[in-house]
Amino acid sequence: MAQHIKLREVGLRDGLQIHPTFMATQDKLAWIAAEAAAGMREIEVTSYVPPKLIPQFADAGEVTEGALQIPGLIVTALIPNLRGAQRGIELGVHKLNYVMSVSHTHNMKNVRRPPEDSITDFRAIVALLREQPAGRRPIICGGLSTALGCSYEGRIAVSQVVRYAVQLAEAGADELVVADTVGYADPVQVRAVFKAVLAEVGHLPVAAHFHDTRGTGLANVGAALDCGITMFDASLAGLGGCPFAPGASGNIVMEDLCFMLDSMGYETGVDLQQLIEVRKIITQALPDIPMQGALARAGLPQGYVTAAARAAMA
Amino acid sequence: MAQHIKLREVGLRDGLQIHPTFMATQDKLAWIAAEAAAGMREIEVTSYVPPKLIPQFADAGEVTEGALQIPGLIVTALIPNLRGAQRGIELGVHKLNYVMSVSHTHNMKNVRRPPEDSITDFRAIVALLREQPAGRRPIICGGLSTALGCSYEGRIAVSQVVRYAVQLAEAGADELVVADTVGYADPVQVRAVFKAVLAEVGHLPVAAHFHDTRGTGLANVGAALDCGITMFDASLAGLGGCPFAPGASGNIVMEDLCFMLDSMGYETGVDLQQLIEVRKIITQALPDIPMQGALARAGLPQGYVTAAARAAMA
Repeated sequence: MAQHIKLREVGLRDGLQIHPTFMATQDKLAWIAAEAAAGMREIEVTSYVPPKLIPQFADAGEVTEGALQIPGLIVTALIPNLRGAQRGIELGVHKLNYVMSVSHTHNMKNVRRPPEDSITDFRAIVALLREQPAGRRPIICGGLSTALGCSYEGRIAVSQVVRYAVQLAEAGADELVVADTVGYADPVQVRAVFKAVLAEVGHLPVAAHFHDTRGTGLANVGAALDCGITMFDASLAGLGGCPFAPGASGNIVMEDLCFMLDSMGYETGVDLQQLIEVRKIITQALPDIPMQGALARAGLPQGYVTAAARAAMA
Repeated sequence: MAQHIKLREVGLRDGLQIHPTFMATQDKLAWIAAEAAAGMREIEVTSYVPPKLIPQFADAGEVTEGALQIPGLIVTALIPNLRGAQRGIELGVHKLNYVMSVSHTHNMKNVRRPPEDSITDFRAIVALLREQPAGRRPIICGGLSTALGCSYEGRIAVSQVVRYAVQLAEAGADELVVADTVGYADPVQVRAVFKAVLAEVGHLPVAAHFHDTRGTGLANVGAALDCGITMFDASLAGLGGCPFAPGASGNIVMEDLCFMLDSMGYETGVDLQQLIEVRKIITQALPDIPMQGALARAGLPQGYVTAAARAAMA
C-alpha cells in the first residue's frame, strides 16, 4: 500500500492575492472544478479579507458557494481574524486557515499586532467555532508564516516557531501549517524546524508550505517527507511570485510536486496529465500571469508508469 | 569544520553543446576566468569531438590552453573516444571525462556502439594514459549517462548502472560520475541507484550529475547528499535545456545549488554574489540563450550569513 500524501492547492489564494488583474469568478470556479476533477481533494479557494484590502477576493462568497457544490472537495479559505471566521461559518466553508507570522515585524506589518495578540485572537476564533453545531463547525488550521525566515528579520529562531505552534495547538487548532513564506529555507533548516515542531505537537496533522523563490522548494519537500510530513501546500503553475522579485517563483509548483511524489511511489490521488491541462484555464483567464512549471514544459518521462498503475500491477 | 563539497561547472560543455550560436572563444575564456575567480575549482571547459559534429567546440584547443593558464583551476574536458583522449594528453588537460550511456539505445545513437564496446574503448584509453609520464597523465573519470532514465528506453535497471560502474572501476577509472541525463530522477530512485553504486565502487570518488528538467534536480541533490555523495556537476544559469522541450531547464543551476549547499552549512569555496555576476558574461555573449536560476532573480535572503562566515564566527 502506497503512503497517501494530502495535497492542498493554494493558488487561488496565495497565487492570486498579489496579482493586479481580477480573475473572473467563473474562471476561478472553472479552475477549482477542473482541478478537483483531476483528483485534488482540498483547495483553498479564497480569503475572507475586506475587498478594499485585496480586491482579488471581492467574490469570496460566490467562489466559496460555488466550490461547495463540488462533491468530495474540501473547501478551505484563509482568515486573518474573527470577522473572517464569522464569514466562513456563515458560508459553510469546510476549513478555515488562520494565519499569523512567527516574525514579530512581519505580523505587525501584516495584521498590525504582535504575534501574542494573534494567539489571543485565535483563542476567540476557536471559542466561536465551538459554539457552532457539530455539523456546521469548520475545521480550524493554525498557520505559522515566516517560520523559516522573514524578509524583515532574516533567520527565525526554531524555539519561536515551536512556541507559537504549541500555543496554537493548546488554543484548539485541529491542524497546523508551517510556512516558508519567502522561500529562504534549505533542507537542513527544514529538518530542524519540522522535527522540533513535531516533537511538541506531533499529535496534530502538520502541513508544510514551501515557496520555490530560491530553487530549494522540492528539496525542502524531500527533507519534510524524511521528517514524516505528509501534507503539503502548493499552487498550480507555481503562482504567487513575489512582487519585489520580478520573475521569482512563488509557491512550489503543484504539477512538479505531484510528479515527484508520484515518481517516489507516494499516492496523491491526482492525475498528472489532467492536472497539467488545468493550466490552460489560468492562461486563458490571465494571459499576463507568469506561469512556472518544469513538468508542463518537459512532459512525463518516456514510458512513465504512475504510482497508481505500479500499485495495481504489484 | 564544515564538510567540503566539490562542484564541477559543466555549462561550457553540457550547456553550450546544443546551443546553435557559437560562443566566441574570448567569451568562453572570460566565463572560465570569472567563475574560477568566484571560487569554482573545477570546470569542464570543452569537448574533444570533431568540429563537424559539434561546431561549438571548434575552439577546444584554444579554450583548453587558455583555461590551463588559470592558477589552481582543475581543467577538464569531455571525451567520447580514444582520439579525444589523445587530444587531451597533447593539450595537457588535467582531467578527461569519458562518457558512455547505460542505455543500449542511447549509446547506439550517441556513439554507434553497444555499451560493452564502450567499456572496451575505455580500457584502451586507460592503457594509453598509463603509457604517459606520471606528471603528464590526466585523471580519468568514467561517466555513466542515462543512468536514471532514458528518453528511448524509459526506466533503467539499477543492476545495469552498477554493472557498468564496476566495469569502469575495474578498467581503471580514477573517479566516476552517474548522470540523470534527461532529468527523470526522483529522490527515492537517486537513493536506490547511488547506494547500489557506492556499495560496489565506493572506494572511488563518485559524482552526481543531475538535470532539472522536471523540477526535481535539487531534491535529488538532497537525496544524493544523504547517501554520502560530495561531488556535483551543475551549470551556471542552468544552461543545457533540451532542444526537444522548449523552455525546459537543463543542468541544475549552479548558483541555486551553491546557495542550497552553503545554506545547509557545507563549504563550497564559492562566493555566491561573485558567482551570480558571472551570468552577465553569458548574457552579453549569447543574448538569446535561455537563462534559468531562482537565486539570481530573488537575491540572497535578508541578513544572509554565508557558511564561511558562520564557520569563522563559531
